[in-house]
Amino acid sequence: MTAEYRQDGPRRVGQVKEVTSVANPIIKDIKALSQKKSRDESKTFLAEGLKLVIDALDRGWTIRTLVYAKAGKGKPLVEKVAARTVAAGGLVLEVNDKVMSSITRRENPQMVAAVFEQRWTALRDVAPKASETWIALDRVRDPGNLGTIIRTADAAGASGVILVGDCTDPFSLETVRATMGSMFALPLVKTTSADFLKWKTSVDARLVATHLAGAVDYRTIDYTSKPVILMMGNEQSGLPDELARAADKLARIPQVGTADSLNLAVATGVMLFEVRRHLLNLDGAK
Amino acid sequence: MTAEYRQDGPRRVGQVKEVTSVANPIIKDIKALSQKKSRDESKTFLAEGLKLVIDALDRGWTIRTLVYAKAGKGKPLVEKVAARTVAAGGLVLEVNDKVMSSITRRENPQMVAAVFEQRWTALRDVAPKASETWIALDRVRDPGNLGTIIRTADAAGASGVILVGDCTDPFSLETVRATMGSMFALPLVKTTSADFLKWKTSVDARLVATHLAGAVDYRTIDYTSKPVILMMGNEQSGLPDELARAADKLARIPQVGTADSLNLAVATGVMLFEVRRHLLNLDGAK
Ligand SMILES: [Co+2]
Ligand SMILES: [Co+2]
Repeated sequence: MTAEYRQDGPRRVGQVKEVTSVANPIIKDIKALSQKKSRDESKTFLAEGLKLVIDALDRGWTIRTLVYAKAGKGKPLVEKVAARTVAAGGLVLEVNDKVMSSITRRENPQMVAAVFEQRWTALRDVAPKASETWIALDRVRDPGNLGTIIRTADAAGASGVILVGDCTDPFSLETVRATMGSMFALPLVKTTSADFLKWKTSVDARLVATHLAGAVDYRTIDYTSKPVILMMGNEQSGLPDELARAADKLARIPQVGTADSLNLAVATGVMLFEVRRHLLNLDGAK
Repeated sequence: MTAEYRQDGPRRVGQVKEVTSVANPIIKDIKALSQKKSRDESKTFLAEGLKLVIDALDRGWTIRTLVYAKAGKGKPLVEKVAARTVAAGGLVLEVNDKVMSSITRRENPQMVAAVFEQRWTALRDVAPKASETWIALDRVRDPGNLGTIIRTADAAGASGVILVGDCTDPFSLETVRATMGSMFALPLVKTTSADFLKWKTSVDARLVATHLAGAVDYRTIDYTSKPVILMMGNEQSGLPDELARAADKLARIPQVGTADSLNLAVATGVMLFEVRRHLLNLDGAK
């Protein structure tokens, strides 16, 4: 990490910088964001795509560094994003295709990528209100699953995602990609199992957890009278007993053949559209 | 491809062969199965995992070549699978970890991998019966999506998956992995858009397609009076008009915000559990 990345405040730099070498120290720092350690230290992450970056800016996210391919030069939308980045004290880099590929680890990268500041919501600030659904994920391991779940949560009108215990990092490139921009739309919370259980007793919400043992049909549960916290267990081992015991209802999706054969993201999608069934309709959902 | 792979009939070889070099021609042929061309030529594919291989044998699939890591030697289940492979005229290879990693392209490979003969069901042999659900996928591109959809189809009790047009290969390593063994449980059909439309007019089934334009709420459609063919459009462009026009119903899942924001596998899962809602319950589904 260069000093430039360690500092948290806004940047002095206000002009566009041209970079042609993958060995450039700023480029090296951006590439280092593929590692969790670097993301944690710098409290930043990388996201790709012009539309996604514009959406993020419109939602009030802050760009630390904007990178665009030479082909983007002069394009009105790219120029506008560059101007907004500079105005907010961020750095703008114009790079060649080789540099762009090395940053995004893709052969055919998008025209724009940006380093954003991470955002976490504190669990103590989460107070589920009527008609709200929060998703709590217990030790989710697969980056693609987490990204797809965040995307699904956004599509179904859920209010946020709570990561319980040792989860995969939502700010990894793979997860950010799989969210398709939805990670800029939903609050993300990170907590321990113990803190989650404590918080649960302090809020007036129904904790519905998917579980194999002693479960009830997911379609027979009352999702309407209270806000719902939908809890999904880890891909391999399912939900640990201490979390299952705290649940108000243990739900199960009926399946043919083997007992627990749905992919986690698909199971979360099926549950979520059931939990919010009474709230979703074609003439303007929510 | 060595001659051994080009021939379609059963093998002469009946004993276990030890292989320690990644340059061994049989190993090279197995590694070549990561390419569609080699899979198409040999009409075979690679699958990993002891449990999965046993399940496949139990379902009547044929192993051409069984590969197991040295650590598997003497383990009763591995020995049993090896004996069954030999009895059916297949080849059995005992390999070191380096060879196993090179075949499976994983750092921590499973103990067992096997080359199976591909199986395709002809569309003309598909005649949906009452209570059956078939999934038709229009030009699905993502291997992980296809695998997850096959897995979901199996879990929800669907009868098979029809690949329409230029779809990703279901026999790729990534897709096979994502199916978690379900690809051995369901018939797979490959067809063109024109042949699919012709076939549709010859069967007494309801074609329900997801589509953005002029769609009806997916929960208001009659899924009970006829078998259902659930058609899902391509990840990027959705369903082409000629397929949409052939549909008996155009379904839509209500979503918040952007119109079409669900991942294809999640959308298929949500649709499928709605289509089969009346058929699935906790006391033994189907
Ligand atoms: Co599970
Ligand atoms: Co779509």
